[in-house]
Amino acid sequence: MDNIILKLNMDDLILQALKEDISGGDVTTASIYSEYAKASAELLCKEDGIIAGLDVWARTFELLDPEIQVIYHDVKDGDRVSNGQKIATVTGDIRVILSGERVGLNYLQRMSGIATYTRGIVNLLEGSKTKLLDTRKTTPNMRIFEKYAVRIGGGTNHRYNLSDGVLLKDNHIAAAGGIQIAVEKAKAYAPFVRKIEVEVESLEMLREALDAGADIIMLDNMSDADMAAAVSIATGKAELEVSGNVTADNIKRLIGLGVDYISSGALTHSAPILDLSLKNIKMW
Amino acid sequence: MDNIILKLNMDDLILQALKEDISGGDVTTASIYSEYAKASAELLCKEDGIIAGLDVWARTFELLDPEIQVIYHDVKDGDRVSNGQKIATVTGDIRVILSGERVGLNYLQRMSGIATYTRGIVNLLEGSKTKLLDTRKTTPNMRIFEKYAVRIGGGTNHRYNLSDGVLLKDNHIAAAGGIQIAVEKAKAYAPFVRKIEVEVESLEMLREALDAGADIIMLDNMSDADMAAAVSIATGKAELEVSGNVTADNIKRLIGLGVDYISSGALTHSAPILDLSLKNIKMW
Amino acid sequence: MDNIILKLNMDDLILQALKEDISGGDVTTASIYSEYAKASAELLCKEDGIIAGLDVWARTFELLDPEIQVIYHDVKDGDRVSNGQKIATVTGDIRVILSGERVGLNYLQRMSGIATYTRGIVNLLEGSKTKLLDTRKTTPNMRIFEKYAVRIGGGTNHRYNLSDGVLLKDNHIAAAGGIQIAVEKAKAYAPFVRKIEVEVESLEMLREALDAGADIIMLDNMSDADMAAAVSIATGKAELEVSGNVTADNIKRLIGLGVDYISSGALTHSAPILDLSLKNIKMW
Amino acid sequence: MDNIILKLNMDDLILQALKEDISGGDVTTASIYSEYAKASAELLCKEDGIIAGLDVWARTFELLDPEIQVIYHDVKDGDRVSNGQKIATVTGDIRVILSGERVGLNYLQRMSGIATYTRGIVNLLEGSKTKLLDTRKTTPNMRIFEKYAVRIGGGTNHRYNLSDGVLLKDNHIAAAGGIQIAVEKAKAYAPFVRKIEVEVESLEMLREALDAGADIIMLDNMSDADMAAAVSIATGKAELEVSGNVTADNIKRLIGLGVDYISSGALTHSAPILDLSLKNIKMW
Amino acid sequence: MDNIILKLNMDDLILQALKEDISGGDVTTASIYSEYAKASAELLCKEDGIIAGLDVWARTFELLDPEIQVIYHDVKDGDRVSNGQKIATVTGDIRVILSGERVGLNYLQRMSGIATYTRGIVNLLEGSKTKLLDTRKTTPNMRIFEKYAVRIGGGTNHRYNLSDGVLLKDNHIAAAGGIQIAVEKAKAYAPFVRKIEVEVESLEMLREALDAGADIIMLDNMSDADMAAAVSIATGKAELEVSGNVTADNIKRLIGLGVDYISSGALTHSAPILDLSLKNIKMW
Amino acid sequence: MDNIILKLNMDDLILQALKEDISGGDVTTASIYSEYAKASAELLCKEDGIIAGLDVWARTFELLDPEIQVIYHDVKDGDRVSNGQKIATVTGDIRVILSGERVGLNYLQRMSGIATYTRGIVNLLEGSKTKLLDTRKTTPNMRIFEKYAVRIGGGTNHRYNLSDGVLLKDNHIAAAGGIQIAVEKAKAYAPFVRKIEVEVESLEMLREALDAGADIIMLDNMSDADMAAAVSIATGKAELEVSGNVTADNIKRLIGLGVDYISSGALTHSAPILDLSLKNIKMW
Repeated sequence: MDNIILKLNMDDLILQALKEDISGGDVTTASIYSEYAKASAELLCKEDGIIAGLDVWARTFELLDPEIQVIYHDVKDGDRVSNGQKIATVTGDIRVILSGERVGLNYLQRMSGIATYTRGIVNLLEGSKTKLLDTRKTTPNMRIFEKYAVRIGGGTNHRYNLSDGVLLKDNHIAAAGGIQIAVEKAKAYAPFVRKIEVEVESLEMLREALDAGADIIMLDNMSDADMAAAVSIATGKAELEVSGNVTADNIKRLIGLGVDYISSGALTHSAPILDLSLKNIKMW
Repeated sequence: MDNIILKLNMDDLILQALKEDISGGDVTTASIYSEYAKASAELLCKEDGIIAGLDVWARTFELLDPEIQVIYHDVKDGDRVSNGQKIATVTGDIRVILSGERVGLNYLQRMSGIATYTRGIVNLLEGSKTKLLDTRKTTPNMRIFEKYAVRIGGGTNHRYNLSDGVLLKDNHIAAAGGIQIAVEKAKAYAPFVRKIEVEVESLEMLREALDAGADIIMLDNMSDADMAAAVSIATGKAELEVSGNVTADNIKRLIGLGVDYISSGALTHSAPILDLSLKNIKMW
Repeated sequence: MDNIILKLNMDDLILQALKEDISGGDVTTASIYSEYAKASAELLCKEDGIIAGLDVWARTFELLDPEIQVIYHDVKDGDRVSNGQKIATVTGDIRVILSGERVGLNYLQRMSGIATYTRGIVNLLEGSKTKLLDTRKTTPNMRIFEKYAVRIGGGTNHRYNLSDGVLLKDNHIAAAGGIQIAVEKAKAYAPFVRKIEVEVESLEMLREALDAGADIIMLDNMSDADMAAAVSIATGKAELEVSGNVTADNIKRLIGLGVDYISSGALTHSAPILDLSLKNIKMW
Repeated sequence: MDNIILKLNMDDLILQALKEDISGGDVTTASIYSEYAKASAELLCKEDGIIAGLDVWARTFELLDPEIQVIYHDVKDGDRVSNGQKIATVTGDIRVILSGERVGLNYLQRMSGIATYTRGIVNLLEGSKTKLLDTRKTTPNMRIFEKYAVRIGGGTNHRYNLSDGVLLKDNHIAAAGGIQIAVEKAKAYAPFVRKIEVEVESLEMLREALDAGADIIMLDNMSDADMAAAVSIATGKAELEVSGNVTADNIKRLIGLGVDYISSGALTHSAPILDLSLKNIKMW
Repeated sequence: MDNIILKLNMDDLILQALKEDISGGDVTTASIYSEYAKASAELLCKEDGIIAGLDVWARTFELLDPEIQVIYHDVKDGDRVSNGQKIATVTGDIRVILSGERVGLNYLQRMSGIATYTRGIVNLLEGSKTKLLDTRKTTPNMRIFEKYAVRIGGGTNHRYNLSDGVLLKDNHIAAAGGIQIAVEKAKAYAPFVRKIEVEVESLEMLREALDAGADIIMLDNMSDADMAAAVSIATGKAELEVSGNVTADNIKRLIGLGVDYISSGALTHSAPILDLSLKNIKMW
Repeated sequence: MDNIILKLNMDDLILQALKEDISGGDVTTASIYSEYAKASAELLCKEDGIIAGLDVWARTFELLDPEIQVIYHDVKDGDRVSNGQKIATVTGDIRVILSGERVGLNYLQRMSGIATYTRGIVNLLEGSKTKLLDTRKTTPNMRIFEKYAVRIGGGTNHRYNLSDGVLLKDNHIAAAGGIQIAVEKAKAYAPFVRKIEVEVESLEMLREALDAGADIIMLDNMSDADMAAAVSIATGKAELEVSGNVTADNIKRLIGLGVDYISSGALTHSAPILDLSLKNIKMW
């Protein structure tokens, strides 16, 4: 994982999560262990899947105590892991291990769950030109972790937030007085490095969007025939995104149409966690 | 929802989530709407379930603009809602409605998903004395919202975090040199209003824990026969909690045994979202 | 002191106190010392008492400069110290020593004052079953330090704050419509690991509270005879707390009655500081 | 109280103190009162003294709920108040009154305690030119409140912190190589609006400090004869401050000598609180 | 100005600037005005230019006191203003007007200076297709204000920061092993809504960048002849940006070449302020 | 630079500036460099001037990664540097060097620009008793850096902010009811270590201010004759400050008059940056 993202954009959130779980010390652990005592524990996988967020997991302990040591057992983010596999060992003050355990797992399980779920869908797209996109349907204050997990799973990130991508929807278009003028306004206002995406509901709107110079066009609720037509109209002029409830069935159909991107909110809002556990705590 | 929790313990997190999604303005909306324009939009339910988090949803808009107006259509947290039902109407500056839409839904969908999932399991427990507990397996920086949703769904909250409840596990017990001494140390250290919970793996440990004055005992990985024995041993002396992967099958069995509490991490880490949507935006 | 509390729950406050005292550099020190210069200084005790907060004191310097070295001279929190005793030596950049001196002492003097005052009262309770409790009458933004000092002095902590303990008073009871229903509501709402405390003004209320299943009962403004009766009624059913202006006189009386706990706001709001000083600064 | 100080420099601290006491809602109050219910309560004085911090007390409730109403009963900061006197009435949501009660009192009691203690000493100085100064021996993260209380009590504030006043002590002087050069360095480095204070231990040092252009001179541990001489030497050239353990006895002596200022750390670190209470809660 | 940007992304910074200037009250104003006193003051222009940041200026007062009233005299951001012109009137508590005056002007003068300077260069580009871009050479913690001012001045914003735009420079290209692979890597990693910009030093590199699918190409240090060639090569394939020290002379030359964008760091790092003043304070 | 200022009062601002520029990783750099790679780069001067802020520049990298190494090439803050001169070398992770480059330069260029501009004016004052002062006309959230740069340039700092210096202007004087009473009020309210400055418009006001015991007097908009008279009247009684648009011409005149201080807002609001650049990046 990129250290700069970790340090500048994740550390504050991880620390905040630690304080959420430890608002006035870990009373159980502090009751029993009044002194430093060296221990180690193993991170075990309890389900097959894709691991994502190892450095976030390790960081949880390190933020409690920079002396903590983490060793990965030939595993890195994006690897396929399997039930029973020993992923990592954390060594250091037993108090840090016990107090950081839950927050570390809460991050790692969710991120790995998203990566696993994403990889499953990405595999269905294999061999096609179609790429899988995430959305802004992320858990509040978890976006940077969840978008990272999507990428580790093989997905592609859509815009990060409302500030770094333009997506003109029906209300914007109506308020502006048409696609042409909406795109013009967006180009005039938004930093020029932003691509302009327009959501369209018909082939006519698609053509208008292309004429207006849209970079990306989202096909909203179109028939298969219209989508097929859209692909042939737009090819070479703009990229096409289809969003919707992705299933094994409809995804094959969409691939067949040749769209550039399929986006799925479920990647981040409905992926089940990957079960992981901290076990075999041993005192040194 | 309790206004004090909302104001003191949730507002900062909601505002942070808004900044996560709007780090430098909503460029699309700002491109098109350069002036205040009054509009309203409807919150629609797209799936049957239990609604939870309405005030958090409303707060998302209010934090962007205190002038925003939210009306609930005879719906309050905990109510059963159904596909197609109109839940609420938000009225005010179109820019606020469009910019706050996603963050508001991200909270509401997740909280309602948890409440819905919890209610499903609580219903299975109906008629018994057994209560459903959540765990600390929550999404980082979402605990206060998720624990609230569990309660709205009919569940009971376990300890909020490591600071406000004592749970002595095998490592603590081993380090202390036995259950008796571990409980004594915890009672001496932790604020006296904390209940003391001990995790036990056998009936022998159970008896030791009772003798030591544990308030709550968690039965870890015991056979049905042992659990039944545990119930008759502990009744009137301490409360019993069983944790584990709750399914329709095993839950009936556990109810039959007469334990006081069943805890389930899945309530917060695996509940699918409840689908909700902001629709029918109209300019005034 | 528990490193996790120090790091997660105290460091921010100590740093904030440092910024309160150094909002734009220490102009005096910066005027004179433009370069690093190694020095040491001694922490001296100027009054007999109980020391508490040594790690907080040391941390004040370390937060300014991780290179600073602190050595304790066979003294640890909770020890009895006497006038003239050399407690510790701090070594490092003279600028750090001079700039951190006041904030470090402000913490240490107050914490030691509380520990000393607490120990004095705890000594009066020696030999009895009665324990000394603190209250929420702490200095704003000092609670974690002051509650720690009470514990070091031999006291027992009551609930940390309004979120982690239930205490039903007359207004709550009246609003609920009686003790029974008030306790039921509290049990239904509060996390199940919370003990329920009820404040009662008569033996009748005491019996109601016991029937309702209160864990702790606070006797408010009762006659000695009633308190004696309360002890015999409640024994084995709930713990009894008496609060009030503790003096050498009344404390003996209360001990004689056999209550479990006496709580005293004075521990944190009226303990005089313990005089300590940083002396004998020497350049290396 | 100055609204700008309250808003810019106190609100954050008061809010932080509220969060210290309410980290996840007030569970007792939330258990019982699930809806808004209008109530009022009276702030009563339980001891004679000087009141200070009324706006801070009111602000505690207002930060929880801007709808709260506070009325003062012909009392303002600095007024002498007496046991039994009704100071103020707070009206609004019962939940806000109950949840904010403790934090509001914690501030008000301490601030009034400091004002009361300060006024007592200021009264001893009446008729003389000598003024009473506070020090930096304040409670961490309470300085702005405590320095305000000193002023309300009739005291005069010394420098606010290390950044806004120069005080050259023996170590600074030794390191600089003499008083003359130390003062020069301070004048060259510190913003020119800062007065320069020098601590001296002898009349010789006093003369050096005067020659160097010191604005204020602190007499450290001098005999009465030397202090008397110091006064005649320094008059018209610099202001003189004496610090030390102020008692009724020595204060008369110091006044007789005619020093300009006496400073006392006890004002902020040892003033007992003034007992105040929130009573007579009535539902509307 | 967009209220959402103001509220979510600017308010914290403005408040921080107020605290920078008022760390413990405005001692002068608080000395004199112990009570609310209504006053008004006029914002006067003392130099011809373009005004930018009026809402930021007004916000400075409103954050100190929501009761403050600001009226603009037929002036809005982007308008040309002239020496002596009355821009706005602020009415309310004299203490707020005096205490907020400087911070408000510090923002407004700098933002208006940038807008004025930008407008001057934009005027030189009039009639051409070439647009003026800003850079990341902004004042730390002022970017959102400075980029806004550039837009008000008629300029176009380049990427906001390192996270929302891709710009591949020589080091990136060398490390990747060529333009083709660098662009591929960037497309694979960065959210797909990001445009890819490549900096090139020769026509050969330009062609490689076009082949690789770069959206924007920055011509670095090329001869006029090469730039002319670049324009004809790239037209219709990618946008061209030229950066450098823009002067009246070279800007004409660059316009003649027909590049799409000229970027200038001077817009934000070297624009002189526009002189504005708060005058004619009158008590009501 | 004083490490305590850097750590306590600057680090937060530098980190905030880094997050302003890197809100979600540096996407370009992260695309290309997925691993640590050691590199070095040189800080080159591209214009003659005075360097200021080297430690701030270095700190920018160190806050991203404590492993980074910075070496200065016989240059320190306040030194005259010249076009082409190699100032420093930074060595470490290429990702840190590329990601921190811009923020580091944004600080260093502006601080050096201010120091250079200040030195230019200070040179004009050489040989006279007149000193150059800065003002509060600084860039929001840059004051601590800009005031430092003025000092490095040879200027003298005026008050840091509204809290640490008293400056009575016409409105304060009118509201108080005269200079005498205004000064009295300020002395009574403000900490006694604050000097009192009064702005006067005539010799009569000057005399009143001297009688009132003002420490510093600012001459506002006086004729040369009056200023000359003011100097002879005030000498030995108070210090005189003249503010205004300083030019080579009028500065000679003011020096001739013998005022103590000339203050100039332009030092911080109009100094052009000093051009500096990070070049010659080499992989190790």
